[in-house]
Amino acid sequence: MTHTPLKALVTGALGFIGTPLCRRLLERGDTVTMLDLPPKAPSDLIGHSSASYHSLDLTRESDWERVIRGHDVVFHLAANTENRPGMAGRLADYEHTVGATVRLLYALGDKEPTTFVLTSSQLVYGGRAGRAREADPVHPQTTFAAGKVAAEAFLCAYANATHISAVACRLANVIGPGIRRGVVADLVHRLREDPDKLQVLGNGQQRRSYVHVDDCVAALLVAAATAQPGFGILNVSNTDTLTAAEVASVVAAASPGLAPAIEYSGGSAWQGDATALHPDASKLAALGWKPQHTSREAVSSTAQSLFGGSTVQGATT
Amino acid sequence: MTHTPLKALVTGALGFIGTPLCRRLLERGDTVTMLDLPPKAPSDLIGHSSASYHSLDLTRESDWERVIRGHDVVFHLAANTENRPGMAGRLADYEHTVGATVRLLYALGDKEPTTFVLTSSQLVYGGRAGRAREADPVHPQTTFAAGKVAAEAFLCAYANATHISAVACRLANVIGPGIRRGVVADLVHRLREDPDKLQVLGNGQQRRSYVHVDDCVAALLVAAATAQPGFGILNVSNTDTLTAAEVASVVAAASPGLAPAIEYSGGSAWQGDATALHPDASKLAALGWKPQHTSREAVSSTAQSLFGGSTVQGATT
Repeated sequence: MTHTPLKALVTGALGFIGTPLCRRLLERGDTVTMLDLPPKAPSDLIGHSSASYHSLDLTRESDWERVIRGHDVVFHLAANTENRPGMAGRLADYEHTVGATVRLLYALGDKEPTTFVLTSSQLVYGGRAGRAREADPVHPQTTFAAGKVAAEAFLCAYANATHISAVACRLANVIGPGIRRGVVADLVHRLREDPDKLQVLGNGQQRRSYVHVDDCVAALLVAAATAQPGFGILNVSNTDTLTAAEVASVVAAASPGLAPAIEYSGGSAWQGDATALHPDASKLAALGWKPQHTSREAVSSTAQSLFGGSTVQGATT
Repeated sequence: MTHTPLKALVTGALGFIGTPLCRRLLERGDTVTMLDLPPKAPSDLIGHSSASYHSLDLTRESDWERVIRGHDVVFHLAANTENRPGMAGRLADYEHTVGATVRLLYALGDKEPTTFVLTSSQLVYGGRAGRAREADPVHPQTTFAAGKVAAEAFLCAYANATHISAVACRLANVIGPGIRRGVVADLVHRLREDPDKLQVLGNGQQRRSYVHVDDCVAALLVAAATAQPGFGILNVSNTDTLTAAEVASVVAAASPGLAPAIEYSGGSAWQGDATALHPDASKLAALGWKPQHTSREAVSSTAQSLFGGSTVQGATT
């Protein structure tokens, strides 16, 4: 099946998910307009013959039209990416997650694009998550999750007004090479600090579904290709789960020769931390998405890439 | 049953719902801090011995703490109040509905109040409304409704972080003396312009539930009095409904001696206009709320008050 090249706009293009998404779009022949804040590290995507990069802060008013117009599909990944407990991050989630979305939709106007994909989060379901389905009520427990609910809501209204095809992808824990935060990066960091001991937050029984970032990129492409006029929601989670204890042992096994004692801090890992998050992704599966990596493989390859190439502190002393 | 006087903070205090709410709170002995933009008309509430009025724009950063701290209960009514179709109002809903809520919660911090009541809207259910229950999924079709979804989401996260008791009241069409917009005010205005003819937008079959503003105030008080720790939702709609055609005939009957021909523009009244909106308010009823006015009585008394005291243009020529 040949792919008809598209003109794609990607926000948060140089981020953890944005980078492999742009790479995949370019590989299949698409032209990509990449928006992001100034990159913290060099990116080989900047300078690609089919890619143009624009350093833009989506929370600021600006003359955007010349840059964002003329695309077939928008992948809107830019958002506040830290899920912080308690009162923290409220304004960041408001301005960077909701504000950036509203301003982008406002700037796009009512003519374009035909397809809009938003990255949302499984955390919109809150503590009631379990095997949440897309039609279940939302119950955000952090402002990070509230920002995602809000961004979805404005996109839903936008799709209703413009008749475009819009999809919110509610992502489970997406991990993979290049990730800088989250449980796997945190565990690798702890092991670098102290290779003899690996402390796990909580009682180790919190269960999560881990999606390899390449599978996440595939899910976003399926979402865009199958989007219907109006607003839809797709859960993106793996077919399996791991407990925090299992994640710790996979990370330890992926380390270069370390055999740490695994300890638990006890209780809930943090406020609003649901015991089990494993959204039902059967809707996405029915559209043809099939993850190529299990949760265990995703954790293992992520940990290996984080350990790889650098010396574990302490292991050399 | 004696009422223990409370210290109440009311935003949007001088508005259509805020005014009778503040009056009711003062009547029962509460102390009321009223926040609003500078009033367009004189208000007898300003200067009341148990009320203090502060002219504040909640969308602007400000030194709010001295004003908003020290209350038992917050009624947060301030928001963009126009439900506009299409692309209009997107930034107003973002800034005035979501932004005002986020900034207010941010300014309140994590110590106060114990109870927080937010006015939301039945429009969060979108076209799927029917007899929507609180746990049904949201599907906002306008940015007005998206703003309400977003404000609810941030309040939900706030309640989770602070353990206060928060309730979002999803209001049906609230009408009554003093209303300046909406279908009844619009019909009265049309009759003043042309007393011989009353054009109804749409086919006249759109069905809505109308709540008298005094019953709405009673609902907000029940919501505050029965709020449980965490975040809850309550539909506020009447036990009955009226079609647009019935509303038009009630308005015509309430006019001073007019007998206009009622005509229909045909089709849907406007984009995103659901055929029937009658959220299920049985949860609120179980908490003791019982509306004192039917939809028909609410429409009739609203129309009478709008006609009353002023001459209908054309009727005197």
